[in-house]
Amino acid sequence: MSTPAHLPYGGVATFARAPQVQPGGDWQADVGVLGVPFDIALGFRPGARFAPRALREASLRSVPPFSGLDGTVRLAGVTFADAGDVVLPSLEPELMRDRTTAAAREVRARCRLPVFLGGDHSVSFPLLRAFHDVPDLHVVQLDAHLDFTDVRNDTRYSNSSPFRRACEALPNLTHITTVGLRGLRFDPEAVAAARARGHTLIPMTDVTRDLGAVLDALPTGKNVYLSIDVDGLDPAVLPGTSSPEPDGFTYAQAMAVLAAAAQRNTVVGLDLVELAPNLDPSGRSELLMARLIMETLCEAGLDGGRRD
Amino acid sequence: MSTPAHLPYGGVATFARAPQVQPGGDWQADVGVLGVPFDIALGFRPGARFAPRALREASLRSVPPFSGLDGTVRLAGVTFADAGDVVLPSLEPELMRDRTTAAAREVRARCRLPVFLGGDHSVSFPLLRAFHDVPDLHVVQLDAHLDFTDVRNDTRYSNSSPFRRACEALPNLTHITTVGLRGLRFDPEAVAAARARGHTLIPMTDVTRDLGAVLDALPTGKNVYLSIDVDGLDPAVLPGTSSPEPDGFTYAQAMAVLAAAAQRNTVVGLDLVELAPNLDPSGRSELLMARLIMETLCEAGLDGGRRD
Amino acid sequence: MSTPAHLPYGGVATFARAPQVQPGGDWQADVGVLGVPFDIALGFRPGARFAPRALREASLRSVPPFSGLDGTVRLAGVTFADAGDVVLPSLEPELMRDRTTAAAREVRARCRLPVFLGGDHSVSFPLLRAFHDVPDLHVVQLDAHLDFTDVRNDTRYSNSSPFRRACEALPNLTHITTVGLRGLRFDPEAVAAARARGHTLIPMTDVTRDLGAVLDALPTGKNVYLSIDVDGLDPAVLPGTSSPEPDGFTYAQAMAVLAAAAQRNTVVGLDLVELAPNLDPSGRSELLMARLIMETLCEAGLDGGRRD
Amino acid sequence: MSTPAHLPYGGVATFARAPQVQPGGDWQADVGVLGVPFDIALGFRPGARFAPRALREASLRSVPPFSGLDGTVRLAGVTFADAGDVVLPSLEPELMRDRTTAAAREVRARCRLPVFLGGDHSVSFPLLRAFHDVPDLHVVQLDAHLDFTDVRNDTRYSNSSPFRRACEALPNLTHITTVGLRGLRFDPEAVAAARARGHTLIPMTDVTRDLGAVLDALPTGKNVYLSIDVDGLDPAVLPGTSSPEPDGFTYAQAMAVLAAAAQRNTVVGLDLVELAPNLDPSGRSELLMARLIMETLCEAGLDGGRRD
Amino acid sequence: MSTPAHLPYGGVATFARAPQVQPGGDWQADVGVLGVPFDIALGFRPGARFAPRALREASLRSVPPFSGLDGTVRLAGVTFADAGDVVLPSLEPELMRDRTTAAAREVRARCRLPVFLGGDHSVSFPLLRAFHDVPDLHVVQLDAHLDFTDVRNDTRYSNSSPFRRACEALPNLTHITTVGLRGLRFDPEAVAAARARGHTLIPMTDVTRDLGAVLDALPTGKNVYLSIDVDGLDPAVLPGTSSPEPDGFTYAQAMAVLAAAAQRNTVVGLDLVELAPNLDPSGRSELLMARLIMETLCEAGLDGGRRD
Amino acid sequence: MSTPAHLPYGGVATFARAPQVQPGGDWQADVGVLGVPFDIALGFRPGARFAPRALREASLRSVPPFSGLDGTVRLAGVTFADAGDVVLPSLEPELMRDRTTAAAREVRARCRLPVFLGGDHSVSFPLLRAFHDVPDLHVVQLDAHLDFTDVRNDTRYSNSSPFRRACEALPNLTHITTVGLRGLRFDPEAVAAARARGHTLIPMTDVTRDLGAVLDALPTGKNVYLSIDVDGLDPAVLPGTSSPEPDGFTYAQAMAVLAAAAQRNTVVGLDLVELAPNLDPSGRSELLMARLIMETLCEAGLDGGRRD
Repeated sequence: MSTPAHLPYGGVATFARAPQVQPGGDWQADVGVLGVPFDIALGFRPGARFAPRALREASLRSVPPFSGLDGTVRLAGVTFADAGDVVLPSLEPELMRDRTTAAAREVRARCRLPVFLGGDHSVSFPLLRAFHDVPDLHVVQLDAHLDFTDVRNDTRYSNSSPFRRACEALPNLTHITTVGLRGLRFDPEAVAAARARGHTLIPMTDVTRDLGAVLDALPTGKNVYLSIDVDGLDPAVLPGTSSPEPDGFTYAQAMAVLAAAAQRNTVVGLDLVELAPNLDPSGRSELLMARLIMETLCEAGLDGGRRD
Repeated sequence: MSTPAHLPYGGVATFARAPQVQPGGDWQADVGVLGVPFDIALGFRPGARFAPRALREASLRSVPPFSGLDGTVRLAGVTFADAGDVVLPSLEPELMRDRTTAAAREVRARCRLPVFLGGDHSVSFPLLRAFHDVPDLHVVQLDAHLDFTDVRNDTRYSNSSPFRRACEALPNLTHITTVGLRGLRFDPEAVAAARARGHTLIPMTDVTRDLGAVLDALPTGKNVYLSIDVDGLDPAVLPGTSSPEPDGFTYAQAMAVLAAAAQRNTVVGLDLVELAPNLDPSGRSELLMARLIMETLCEAGLDGGRRD
Repeated sequence: MSTPAHLPYGGVATFARAPQVQPGGDWQADVGVLGVPFDIALGFRPGARFAPRALREASLRSVPPFSGLDGTVRLAGVTFADAGDVVLPSLEPELMRDRTTAAAREVRARCRLPVFLGGDHSVSFPLLRAFHDVPDLHVVQLDAHLDFTDVRNDTRYSNSSPFRRACEALPNLTHITTVGLRGLRFDPEAVAAARARGHTLIPMTDVTRDLGAVLDALPTGKNVYLSIDVDGLDPAVLPGTSSPEPDGFTYAQAMAVLAAAAQRNTVVGLDLVELAPNLDPSGRSELLMARLIMETLCEAGLDGGRRD
Repeated sequence: MSTPAHLPYGGVATFARAPQVQPGGDWQADVGVLGVPFDIALGFRPGARFAPRALREASLRSVPPFSGLDGTVRLAGVTFADAGDVVLPSLEPELMRDRTTAAAREVRARCRLPVFLGGDHSVSFPLLRAFHDVPDLHVVQLDAHLDFTDVRNDTRYSNSSPFRRACEALPNLTHITTVGLRGLRFDPEAVAAARARGHTLIPMTDVTRDLGAVLDALPTGKNVYLSIDVDGLDPAVLPGTSSPEPDGFTYAQAMAVLAAAAQRNTVVGLDLVELAPNLDPSGRSELLMARLIMETLCEAGLDGGRRD
Repeated sequence: MSTPAHLPYGGVATFARAPQVQPGGDWQADVGVLGVPFDIALGFRPGARFAPRALREASLRSVPPFSGLDGTVRLAGVTFADAGDVVLPSLEPELMRDRTTAAAREVRARCRLPVFLGGDHSVSFPLLRAFHDVPDLHVVQLDAHLDFTDVRNDTRYSNSSPFRRACEALPNLTHITTVGLRGLRFDPEAVAAARARGHTLIPMTDVTRDLGAVLDALPTGKNVYLSIDVDGLDPAVLPGTSSPEPDGFTYAQAMAVLAAAAQRNTVVGLDLVELAPNLDPSGRSELLMARLIMETLCEAGLDGGRRD
Repeated sequence: MSTPAHLPYGGVATFARAPQVQPGGDWQADVGVLGVPFDIALGFRPGARFAPRALREASLRSVPPFSGLDGTVRLAGVTFADAGDVVLPSLEPELMRDRTTAAAREVRARCRLPVFLGGDHSVSFPLLRAFHDVPDLHVVQLDAHLDFTDVRNDTRYSNSSPFRRACEALPNLTHITTVGLRGLRFDPEAVAAARARGHTLIPMTDVTRDLGAVLDALPTGKNVYLSIDVDGLDPAVLPGTSSPEPDGFTYAQAMAVLAAAAQRNTVVGLDLVELAPNLDPSGRSELLMARLIMETLCEAGLDGGRRD
C-alpha cells in the first residue's frame, strides 16, 4: 500500500497539490501556476473571480502523473508550484493590470511553463505584457468571441478588448489565431482590424465541418501563448460561463486544437478564463477545465514526450 | 464612441429593448411580441409561467442588428414592439383562452410577424385561433411529443392537446409537420388521428440520420405558423423544461429546420413554449432560446433578405 | 369584478407597474424610481447588479394602494414613475459616478421622493451628490458596517467608502446616523473620523437592547436621506447579500427605524443597496425588500398621512 | 440491538413509514394521511404540488413514538395509514374539488384524525366539504393572509378564497379563527365579510406582543379543523413557500397556537398547505413542517394523553 | 375516458407504480426492483444514496406499456414489484454487504429480472454475490472507469474495486466487458490484472469511432449482468454524478450498447449506480436514467419480444 | 496605505491566511488548525466533508486582529498555523479514527489551542482521544442532540455516539455539559446513561427562558473542550446542516454560551462539526461559523485578554 493520499476534498487546495510559493520567491518548477481572480471587466454575469480557487479544488481529481489504459505515463517527474493569486486592488483597473503583469513576469522567470487562471478575458492583456520579450509571439485563442474590440461600453479594457490592447502594446505579438467564433453579433471594426493585421479567424462551423483543416491552419514552429476562453466550449459541456453561445467545442474538439497547437509549437504560456463556477451547480465545469489544463500540459512536451 | 447603451442586466427588460405597447394600442412594428405566462395545463414540473420575463431579459444579449463575421448585417431596420403579456385569470382556462386569442389578434393586426412567448404548449391552441382567417395554414412544430391527444387526465385542454383542438376549431389549418418526435410513449389514438389527417410525423432519429431529407419534407410556399416546443432540443442543450427527452435537436439542427421552414414559406406567426427557467440555474436555456428566436427572425425575410 | 390585473409574474416588470420614463424625460410623479446596477466596487460576492431588476419584479406583489386589516388605506393616489436604470459604462468608475449623479438629479427634479435601487453601497456617493443643494442634509443609514473608510484595497471608491467621499464632497451633508453596526472588524481610522465629525454610531446590540432609545437618537425635523444597506438585516431574514453579519435587524426592527426616521423628518431620497438576488434561491430577499421600500414610502407622508 | 430500521433516505417513502392504503380501501388507523398535490390555484410561484411527496420523505426523520428528554413518550401505539394522494385531473378544477372531497370523506371514515397534505390553500375548501356533518365546526387557521376573498383574478376558487367558499357551502361551519395576519394588502370586502360572520381575526403583531392573550382567544370545547398555511411562519424559518411575508411565527409560536387549539378542542381534521419544497434548497422547510405535523398530533390526544 | 391515473408528481412513489413488497415476501413478478442507497464508499462527492428514491419518482413519467410512433407496444403485460431498499447499517461496510447480498438473493428468487438501484459502484460486489450460481456469468459494464483496483485509499471495498472483489469471490464470473473507459488516470496494476483475466477493455474513443465494432465485441449467448455506471454517459447528458469525465456516451450510444448486450444474451440482473440527483438541479439526470432502465428492459425479451 | 492584501476570494485558502504546515512538522503557533473531512458516519444528508475547505475560505473574511467599534483590539499578535486535513482512508472507520487521533496529538503538541474543523460529529471521539492526558477534562457541547447513544443503525461509531465512546475510552473525561437539546426523539438509554454519569443536560427551552441561569450552570475553572455542533443553532441562522431542528440558538445565544465557557475555564481544544456547506446556497452558514470560531478564540484568553 502506497503513502496515504488525500481524497479530492481533503487538504488545503493548491493546484495539483503543488507547494505554495510566492510569485517572486525562491523556487523553480516546470509549471508555475498563478491566479488572477478579476472579473469586473465583464459586462454580464460575474463569477470568474471564483475560478482560480475552484480550479485548484477541481485539479485535485487530476493530479499527475497520468497512467493511461495503454500503459503510457504522462507528466511523470514534472514539477509544479502554486504561486497563489495576484493581489488585486478594488476598482482600480490600471493598478490591477500593473500588478498582474509584474506577478506574471515573476512566475514566468521561475518556471518553464506558466499557467494562469483567470478571471475574465481582460486579464490576458496584462498577462501577455509579461511576454513582451518573446520573439515572434503567436497567440492561439479558443473563443466564441473575437475580443478585439477597440472600445466597448466606454472602456478600452473590458473583456472584449484584451487582444486589441495587447497588439498595441506588444510589437513582438505578431499573430493571433482565433478558433471557435460564433457570436451572433461581431463588431465590424474589430473584425476589420484583426483581418488587417493578418490574424486567422476561424468560425466554429469550420471546426464542425473539417477539424483537420482547422488544425492545419494553426501556426507551426512558433512561440505560442494559449488563451482558452471557456465559452469556446459548448454550453452543454461547460455551463459555468457568463456568455454562453450555442454549438461550441466538444471537449475532444477543444483538446484536439490545444494538442495540435502545443505539439507543433513551443508553448510559452497558457491562460484559462471566463469560468464562472457559480453558474454551474453540477460542478462539472471546473472539473473538466482542470482536466483540460492538465491534458494540454501533457501535450506541451514538459516530460520530453516520455511515454513509458 | 456611440451612444451609451445598457449592459444586458441594465434597464427595464422589454424584448430586444423594444418600446412597450398595449396589444390593442396605437402602434405598428415589423415584429410584435406577446407573452402568455400560463403553465397550469402542463402535468409535471411548472415554471413556463416565468418564461416570457426570462426571455425578455435574455434577449438583451441579442439585440439586433447583427453583424456577422462575414460582413453580413441582419435585421437592420427591422422594428420591434413589446406588447407585454396577456392578462390572465387564475384557474379559469376558458377565459384564459379567450383573452389569449383576443390579444393575439390585436398584436397580429399591428405587425408583420407576431412572436408569442409561452407558457406551456396548451397556449398554441388559443394563439392559433387568432389565425383563423389565414388560408391553407400550415404548422411546423419542433417537439419531442405529438401534442395531438384528445383527452389526457380528464381534460381536453392540456399541453398534450393544443393541435387537436386547433384542428377541430380551424378549418383553415390544413396540415401539421411535427419534427423531433421521440417520447417513450405515444397515444395510439393521437398518432392515428394525426396520420388520418395527413400530418407529417418525423421522428428525431430521422433528423439525426438525414437532416437534408427532413428539410425536404417541410412544406414549401405556404403560410406557416412555427411552434417551437423547447423540449424538442436535447436536454443537454436545453435543461430548462418540464419534460426532457434524450437525444434531441442540437441548436444547429433546430436552427436548420427553422431556417428552412422560414425561408421556403411565409411565416405568419411564431411561438416558443415549455421553457422553464427555474429548472436551469445556469441560465443558458433562456439565453439560447432568445437567440434562437432572433435567428429565426433573421431567416423570415423581414429585412428583405438584406445582406450588406 | 374589477379591471383585470396581472398576476405578479405577468407583464413587463416596472417598479409597482409604474409607467416607464426616461430620467430626463417629460414626466412628474410622487415617487420616481431609478436603478443603479453597479456592483464592481464590492470586494466579495457580486450580484447586486441584478438587484434593480429583481426589485422591480418583486414589487409586483406589493403594488399600492394598501388596505390594512384595520381599514386604513395607504399610498392611495400616490403616483409612481420608473425611470429605468442609469446607463453604466464598464470598468470606468469615474464615468459611472458622473452618470449616476446626473441621472439622479434628473429624477429628483421630477418627483417628490426619488427611490434608488442599487447596486453596491458605493453608489450612495454619486447619488448623494445629486442632493448637494439640500440644506443641512442628514443621512440615516441602516448597515452592519460603517462604510466610512478612507481607502480600502487601494481604492477610495469601494463600497466601504461612500459616506467618506460624500462628506468630503458635500458641505451640506452635516450628519450621519448609522444604525446596526456589528462587523467583526472596524477600521479604527474610519471610526475616529466619523466620531470626529459628530456622527451617531449605533451598534446593533443597542437596537436589540432598547429599540425605543435608538429611535429617540434619530434626527428630528431634518432633511433626511435614507440609505438602506440590506446587510443591516439579519442574514436569516435576508440571505441575499454579499457580506452577511449575524444578529442583525428583524424586518420589524428595520421598519421601526425607517418609520421613525421618515415620520420625524422630511425624506428627500432613499436608496436600497447590497441586495444580491443570486445568493438567495428562495427569492424572499427581494420580495421582502420591495415590501420594505413600500412600507417606508407609506411612512413618508406622500399621501398626506391619509388613513381612511 | 433492535430490529434494523431504514435511515431516513432509505425505503419507499410513505408518511411515517405507514402502510400504504387506498382512500376507500379496507383499513383503519388512528391517523390517515391523504395528499392533495394541487397547486394551480395559486397566483405566484408554483411548487406546492411537490409537497405531499416531500413531506412523506421528511417525515422519515420524525417517526413516532417520541421519547422526550424528560422520559415522556408520545404517540406510542398510535397507528398511521398513508392513503396516497387524490388522483387529480389536469386543468379541471371542479372535478379536482369533487375528487378531493370524495377521497377526504373516505379517509375520514376510516381514521380518528385525517391529515391532509396540500397543495395550495384552495384545497381546504374541498377538504372541508368532507366535514359537512360535523356540528358546530370551527376552523383554526394559521396564515399570513385571510383567504376569504370572494373573487380574485376572475376566479372564485383560487387560494385566496377557500374559506369564503367553505362558509357558503357548509352551514355547519360556524366560526373561523385566523392567526398571524400580516399581508401588506387586505381585500376590504373580505375583511368586512369575515367580520360580519363574527370570525376572529388576529394579526401577527398580537402574537408577538402577547401570545398568552392570543391563546385565550382560541375556541374551547369545539370540533376544530386546523388549517396550517406555512406562510404563517416566518420566511426565515420557512423559506419554501410561494408568498412569504416578513415577521411571522417562529416554530415555537406556531406550535403554541396549534397545541392550545388541539388541547382545548377536538381536532377533527388537519391540513398543511402552501409548502413549496422547490423554493428551499436547504430542505429544512419540509423537515420542520413534518415535525410540526407530528408535534400537533402529539397534542391531539390520540394516545390518551399518555405520558409515560 | 380511461381510469384516472396520477400525474407524475402524484401518489406514493414506487418504481413504475409497482406494488410495494418485501424482498423476502410472498410475491412474484417479471421485474423486481431493489434499492441500495449506499454511497459512503465513493471518494468524492456524495449523493448516490438519494438515487433509489429519485429513480422511483422519475420512473413515474415512464410507466409501461410503451406505445411507439410505429404502433409497436413494449412491456405490455410485464409485471413489476418494488421491494424497497436494503435496510442498511451506518458505517459497517461488511454488514452492509451481507445484507445487500441477502436481499438481492431474495429478490432474484422471486422475479425473472432483478433491477438494482444504487448507490455507488461498490454495491455491485455484494449484488453480484447473489449470482454466484449462474454458470459462466458475464458482466457488461458501462463506465468511464475500470473499477478493478485492488486497494484505494486503504480500502479494498471502495467504488473503485467492486469487480476485483467479485472476481475473487465468484469463480463463475468468467468475463467482464467494460465499455466507455476514459479516465485521465488508470491504475496500472488494475489494468494489468483485468487484462490478465482476459477482460475486454473498450475505451470511449472506440465507441465514438466505430460503434458497430464495439457492439460486435460484446458477448453473445451468455448469462449477462449489466452494470450501468452513469458516469459512463457524457456529463452534458448526465450531470448528476460524482466523478464526471468528458466525452462520454450519448444516451443513444449507451442505449445501443445496452440493447445489443440485452438482445444477444440472457440478462440475469441489472444495476444502475453512481447517480447523484443532488448534483443536477435540472432533474434530468434521474428522468433520463429511469427511461434508460425502462428501454433496457424493453430489449431484454421480457414480453417475448412482442411488437404488436 | 498598508501592504496590499487579498480580497476574500483571492489567494490559496488556508485558515485565516495562516502558513500551511504539516501536523507533525516543525512549527509552533498559538492556534493550530486541523480539518477532519469525514462525514460517512452521519445517517442523513452528507456534506460535512466539504466543511474544512469551506471554513478556510470563509475565514478569509474574518482574519484577525479585530478592531472593535469601541477601540478594543482582539487577537492581535496571536499566531495561527494551518495543519491541513487528516489524510483519511475510504470506508475504514477504525483507521480513520486512529489517524485522526494521531494528527490531533501532533497539532496539540505544537500549539496552545487546537481548532478542529469537522466533519460529522463522530470525529469528536478520535479528537478527544488526543486529550487523554488532560486531568479532569470537561466537555461543553452545543447541540440539538445528545450524541450519547450506545448503538445506532448497528454501529457504535456513528455521529450519534461520539461522547459515549469518549467516556468509555477516557477515564479523565469527567463531565459533559450539553446545551441546546431539542430533538423530537431521544434515546432513553442514552439519556439515562448520561444522567447516571452526572452529565448536565440543558434543553434549548432553558436557554430561551433564562440564558443567565444556563451560563451559571456551565463549569468553572476546568480544562474544557468545546464541541460545537452547528445544528445547535437555529436552522434559520444556519441552514447548512444535515439534521436541522427548529427553535435553536441565535448566533448571539451561542456566542454567549461559548464566551462564558471560554472565559471561566481553560479551553484545551475546540471542534466545530456537522456543517454542510452544500445545503446552503447562500453561503452564510460557513461565513457565520468561521466568525463564531474567531469570536470564541477572542474569548479564550490567547492574547492575554488584552483590550487596547
